[in-house]
Amino acid sequence: MRNKSSNNYFSFEVLAKDERTGARRGRLMTPHGAVETPVFMPVGTQATVKSLAPEQVESAGASIILANTYHLFLRPGHDIVREAGGLHGFMRWDGPILTDSGGYQVFSLSDTRKISERGVAFRSHIDGSEQILTPEKSIEVQHSLGADIIMAFDECAAYTQGREYIEESLSRTSRWLERCVAEHERSGDPAKQALFGIMQGGMHPDLRAKSAAEITQYDLPGYSIGGLSVGEPKETMYMVLDSCAGLLPDGKPRYLMGVGSPDDLFEGIQRGIDMFDCVIPTREARHGKAMTSAGGINIKNAAYERDFAPLDAECDCYTCRNFSRAYLRHLHKAGETLAGTLLSIHNIRFLTSTMERIRAAIEADAFAELKSEFFAKYYGRAV
Amino acid sequence: MRNKSSNNYFSFEVLAKDERTGARRGRLMTPHGAVETPVFMPVGTQATVKSLAPEQVESAGASIILANTYHLFLRPGHDIVREAGGLHGFMRWDGPILTDSGGYQVFSLSDTRKISERGVAFRSHIDGSEQILTPEKSIEVQHSLGADIIMAFDECAAYTQGREYIEESLSRTSRWLERCVAEHERSGDPAKQALFGIMQGGMHPDLRAKSAAEITQYDLPGYSIGGLSVGEPKETMYMVLDSCAGLLPDGKPRYLMGVGSPDDLFEGIQRGIDMFDCVIPTREARHGKAMTSAGGINIKNAAYERDFAPLDAECDCYTCRNFSRAYLRHLHKAGETLAGTLLSIHNIRFLTSTMERIRAAIEADAFAELKSEFFAKYYGRAV
Repeated sequence: MRNKSSNNYFSFEVLAKDERTGARRGRLMTPHGAVETPVFMPVGTQATVKSLAPEQVESAGASIILANTYHLFLRPGHDIVREAGGLHGFMRWDGPILTDSGGYQVFSLSDTRKISERGVAFRSHIDGSEQILTPEKSIEVQHSLGADIIMAFDECAAYTQGREYIEESLSRTSRWLERCVAEHERSGDPAKQALFGIMQGGMHPDLRAKSAAEITQYDLPGYSIGGLSVGEPKETMYMVLDSCAGLLPDGKPRYLMGVGSPDDLFEGIQRGIDMFDCVIPTREARHGKAMTSAGGINIKNAAYERDFAPLDAECDCYTCRNFSRAYLRHLHKAGETLAGTLLSIHNIRFLTSTMERIRAAIEADAFAELKSEFFAKYYGRAV
Repeated sequence: MRNKSSNNYFSFEVLAKDERTGARRGRLMTPHGAVETPVFMPVGTQATVKSLAPEQVESAGASIILANTYHLFLRPGHDIVREAGGLHGFMRWDGPILTDSGGYQVFSLSDTRKISERGVAFRSHIDGSEQILTPEKSIEVQHSLGADIIMAFDECAAYTQGREYIEESLSRTSRWLERCVAEHERSGDPAKQALFGIMQGGMHPDLRAKSAAEITQYDLPGYSIGGLSVGEPKETMYMVLDSCAGLLPDGKPRYLMGVGSPDDLFEGIQRGIDMFDCVIPTREARHGKAMTSAGGINIKNAAYERDFAPLDAECDCYTCRNFSRAYLRHLHKAGETLAGTLLSIHNIRFLTSTMERIRAAIEADAFAELKSEFFAKYYGRAV
């Protein structure tokens, strides 16, 4: 199962390709087990998938989870996580873990950031303390966190930035990648942690191509696509994505960062994406929103007051096997955190089971049929 | 196992008595299974033991849980719970359930209450709506909720009330018991739900005796002791308790309402109490407080920042088998609800496992030794 084009400890194999689209079915091997792709990764920002015990995350069908370097760097501090045996030991998730680089959060969460060639100086959103993240520091922190897959430090330029800034930014991100690769080779263990590069370039297909050419100079075990789903219209994102996958090596996993709505998953997979992460299932859950095979519902709706059916009769999750919409509505209205827990379990399971169906459809050359069926049932519209 | 002195469907059997104290080891049979006594019952106020899925409550060793009639009457409404198959179906707890009568909360939570012989008029603490609970209404609501054990509607007079008011109040509570018994016989099913009477009388031993004489006129399947742990010094509570158990029939379970700190459990059991409930394990958990075999700890303490040991090395709960104090501290400081969930699991298990040890000690005539050992380790003092 090991991929010679990668390294000796990680591998990615494309097991099947859909005949009529770019969709592909693969398997990513990591030191903590296999990940069947396409895959959806729930987000455990602060070393916890919000409101869920790890056994609940696992029972919801998650095979790999994501944690955020920015948050864990600031609290509790990566040294503490390292002493606890890394994220696997700290949060007791025994499967594969992926950490981002902190780049995205430095730009979206911190105050008074100052970007330079060296890195990004910023003030912590927690206590206002002065901090700095550089490519080397991000890699060092991610070494301490110990995830199976780590990300290069990048700048996710704002959607509103002009072309000139985007170009400058992606060039810097490429130079930062060189430093990340060097730091990982110098102080890391590529046998234990796979470093992915990140493609930027905003909504400009030519800049995407430039970024891809720069990051694929390094024979990395995987590549991410950043800077999408940042406020642009969906059609724009899909247009950019049309060209992205083809710019990346066929034999390496492609990870579309921060994307997770059902339509975006289908559209991304159709365009050759293998990995996705998003806070949608847990964030929506806390707001009483559930994804079901018949579309999204809001459990606060009065229509569910006496609805004793499960959230989704087609779902096999703990929540749907046990609890009614009426009970979930009661919990949510009563302000009980169990509402968010049970809806999170369901929403994660909805996405992982959708991915299971997608993987089976790709193997059967039936991705397009599944997509049509899903869109009709979930969105009540054609693809 | 059925007790002729009760009815044909509930029974209580005293299996062993400690030779040197009033402590006793019993078994209460209910339509949803056996309850080994002495027992601690976690509280699921709004049809959920806060932040825990029922499978987590069960794995923490709880055999019976309590739910609050006042809260469920107001939200979601007892009719909805009834249509869901009662509390067992609604919240998916398959073991025994006990509901209180709503009396205590009417006095502690509602606004502008007005008490009369008929019942209590009050304004909902949720939406200010005008409501009324009477003995008949409380029983009707509890019939809808469908708990195995239901409580008579009582007034829990404030600790600060004078003797004259306490006497008037307990007489009214006794008259209300008559109406509860009549309503339960008229519209209930004593085969499915056992009605317990409640002793009141404040801190006055003679009024406790008067109350006991009045409520034991009815051959009820169990008796509760209310109006304690309401602000009085612990020594006062123990003094009152000295006489209470002896005033109640030996062959019926005795339930001390709202009590659950470890010292109070030992002191109550020593005085012949069989059942306890309290929000302590879950409420303390939300504030970062854990009960351990070496005493109480506050997980927020900086001493635990790098403490990679479990909360309690002697504990077999999910939390202690998996997570470190450092991780729990991080979760709590980061505001993650999983902190409260994991500490709740531990605190409930701490009390249920303490009860297991107490039951074994009573069987071995070693209750006093266990109490001494526990107090020395937990409180660092003699009994």
